[in-house]
Amino acid sequence: MGLDGSGYSGLALEKLSLSGATIGDTIVVRSNGIEYSGILMPRAQIGTDPDHIVIKLETGYNIGVRLSSESEVKLARKGKKQKRKAVEEEMVSKEKLPAVSILSTGGTIASKVDYQTGAVNPALSAQDLYDAVPELKSHAKVKAKVLMSIFSEDIHPSNWTKIAKGIVTEIREGANGVIIAHGTDTMGFTAAALAFALQDLPVPVAIVGSQRSSDRPSSDAAMNLIQATDLVGHVDAAEVMVVMHAETDDTYSYAHRGTRVRKSHTSRRDAFQSVNSYPLFKVSSSGIEELASPLLRRDSSRKLKVKPVFDDRVALVRTYPGVKADVIDHLVKQEYKGMVVEGTGLGHAPKALQSSIVAAVESDIVVAMTSQCISGRIDMNVYRTGVELLELGVIGCEDMLTETALVKLMWLLANMKTVEKVRSALPEPIAGEISMRTEMAEYTATPE
Amino acid sequence: MGLDGSGYSGLALEKLSLSGATIGDTIVVRSNGIEYSGILMPRAQIGTDPDHIVIKLETGYNIGVRLSSESEVKLARKGKKQKRKAVEEEMVSKEKLPAVSILSTGGTIASKVDYQTGAVNPALSAQDLYDAVPELKSHAKVKAKVLMSIFSEDIHPSNWTKIAKGIVTEIREGANGVIIAHGTDTMGFTAAALAFALQDLPVPVAIVGSQRSSDRPSSDAAMNLIQATDLVGHVDAAEVMVVMHAETDDTYSYAHRGTRVRKSHTSRRDAFQSVNSYPLFKVSSSGIEELASPLLRRDSSRKLKVKPVFDDRVALVRTYPGVKADVIDHLVKQEYKGMVVEGTGLGHAPKALQSSIVAAVESDIVVAMTSQCISGRIDMNVYRTGVELLELGVIGCEDMLTETALVKLMWLLANMKTVEKVRSALPEPIAGEISMRTEMAEYTATPE
Repeated sequence: MGLDGSGYSGLALEKLSLSGATIGDTIVVRSNGIEYSGILMPRAQIGTDPDHIVIKLETGYNIGVRLSSESEVKLARKGKKQKRKAVEEEMVSKEKLPAVSILSTGGTIASKVDYQTGAVNPALSAQDLYDAVPELKSHAKVKAKVLMSIFSEDIHPSNWTKIAKGIVTEIREGANGVIIAHGTDTMGFTAAALAFALQDLPVPVAIVGSQRSSDRPSSDAAMNLIQATDLVGHVDAAEVMVVMHAETDDTYSYAHRGTRVRKSHTSRRDAFQSVNSYPLFKVSSSGIEELASPLLRRDSSRKLKVKPVFDDRVALVRTYPGVKADVIDHLVKQEYKGMVVEGTGLGHAPKALQSSIVAAVESDIVVAMTSQCISGRIDMNVYRTGVELLELGVIGCEDMLTETALVKLMWLLANMKTVEKVRSALPEPIAGEISMRTEMAEYTATPE
Repeated sequence: MGLDGSGYSGLALEKLSLSGATIGDTIVVRSNGIEYSGILMPRAQIGTDPDHIVIKLETGYNIGVRLSSESEVKLARKGKKQKRKAVEEEMVSKEKLPAVSILSTGGTIASKVDYQTGAVNPALSAQDLYDAVPELKSHAKVKAKVLMSIFSEDIHPSNWTKIAKGIVTEIREGANGVIIAHGTDTMGFTAAALAFALQDLPVPVAIVGSQRSSDRPSSDAAMNLIQATDLVGHVDAAEVMVVMHAETDDTYSYAHRGTRVRKSHTSRRDAFQSVNSYPLFKVSSSGIEELASPLLRRDSSRKLKVKPVFDDRVALVRTYPGVKADVIDHLVKQEYKGMVVEGTGLGHAPKALQSSIVAAVESDIVVAMTSQCISGRIDMNVYRTGVELLELGVIGCEDMLTETALVKLMWLLANMKTVEKVRSALPEPIAGEISMRTEMAEYTATPE
């Protein structure tokens, strides 16, 4: 049989056998409401998941499609009688490569060592990057621009505005996908900011960085950049994602939802983790596998809504034994507009802060609660402390990351007309930042 | 052969075969400089690790001893001819049970639902707890006391002093081990505080809590309490540990080093994780396995040093895009004594904070740097931002948890005579809170 030794098993083998297709044939797969068409590829390199089939799209790019029992597989056209190797090595014509814009903001992915101090400085332009990773040429028609050159610890909400506008320009000029090269320190904050600022995206946006500078042999810059390029060039998704190493080795990367990802290790190459949510895609040299549904599919005709402004008068207050109310009193006096309290456990703060929290709420400061636990959901209805804080007007942020809650509050304050509207919008999902039901069985989000 | 079907394999089987011992014999095991003596038990229940052997100590308690190739196993005395089942069921005489003191501070482990509000209130005394978990009687001679009844989000550094003094009293009255029942929200902070306050402990101290209140069928209170009792009653270690579920099921618990553990999930029963360090012990109904070396072994003749005072004039400042210097200026004006900056990545803070950090250092405020990544080590010598902050006088906290750094700074400020002494003691290990070399290959510390 034509599928012997193809690497398929289980559900995939069953569906393929019914269709009569063999390796090299063009097939049409309909799964979860989406239709994919391409040449059936062998499965050897992509793991042992029996629910995926891999097809080469017309662009020459391989995509893994997850099947369910409802999925349909149809044979569209028998392939030419060619050896499997020939199918794998089939070259893509330059004209069919996607148009990808790379906007550089600074950070290690665009840095080199300062030989005076031995420290690493942001220096390379996006063009230098492109020169440094010549393989990019065979992955996309790349256009490179330097937007700014800032260490990511110095990124300010006003920079988010500039980055958002830079992305809009590239999309309007026809980019099939946009990449932001960014320092890793605050990459999660910027990803969340762009996810709120750019609504109804027609094409995907990937933020990419590196944990080791590109002049070190252990640099993760090249792989992250290439896989981000593959992702935004080909994936059938249109939202803001962070693309970084999924393992310490140069194996594959994850595309994390921008509102659900944080830097969770100071130095590991797989420092970025999705929290309370799965990564959306696994990207490897064999293709892209969808791990969770994106918010939107790619649709170049979709009208982009741009709301790039943020109000930076928002503070982050972490509670701890001995924390004093004077810090909150100070924020009230300074006329801050919002405050995220990163409390303990299910969303608690010491009684010693209560009267100052009341004063803040009465001054129309929006007071939000997240948990310093990082993983899990706020639930302020379990213990008396939580119930009391809700009664004082504190808003529980469900399973939203602290970083995302902070960015969202800055964005809401700049885009909503009244404090009441900000308060009611805060705990409602806008960009996949909250799920009303907990879906993750795992602690951190590693689907395999 | 006498070891057929004993469950032993690999190194353990090899060493046992050489000794001539069979199940039920009394053996002496010398491993890593420690000598254990007891009855050889079968291995069926303790997993498949071929490097462990399990012996029943004279107290009737089972201990797993990890062997290396240098370990020695000697047959001391042939056991009576009895069936294996008889060995397993061998009862312990009440007189040999260890003396364990349980001091209650509040929290879910000592709570019940308030049927008026539906919320959970701290209510049960340690005695009630003991009554609620009658099995405890067969694990230890338990003495129970209520020290305080406080939700753990309201625990203040002055409460740490009271808890430390309460432990000292129990140890002086002859306890073989002390348990602190504590709310989970700030349990990690209290564990770190006790680790600094109680130096040269002669016996172990375990802090234990529960994520589900004890009147719920899913409560983890009973297992955590029983396993903490087994741990402090028998383990050959003398330091402050946190004993909580290692998995969501009622399988086994980990004993984490008090200075290395944090609550990492809002609701899961296995919410506590060791960070940048392995748990010290695995505790199950089959016994105790040592996973990493404790700081001190049990030695009832060791002279305890008590330094239970903390200075609460320490603030925690987390950085983020848009963080403003006025928060630090406020701390200087309020004459805080210390400040932990939870920066980004390897230990960075925005340039916008630099002049205020200078003002803080010049006002003799000790400024420490940790990372909001949680996992990994601070390294302020890699990027220019870090180098500059070091030059300003900021102290990098190596691989210390933010929570532990905060507690340590409060403790140093109360116990050192000069700011210079505090500054130099902060980045040096005192209670296992820092390792100078990174030993962990894993992301989070799960040794299996």
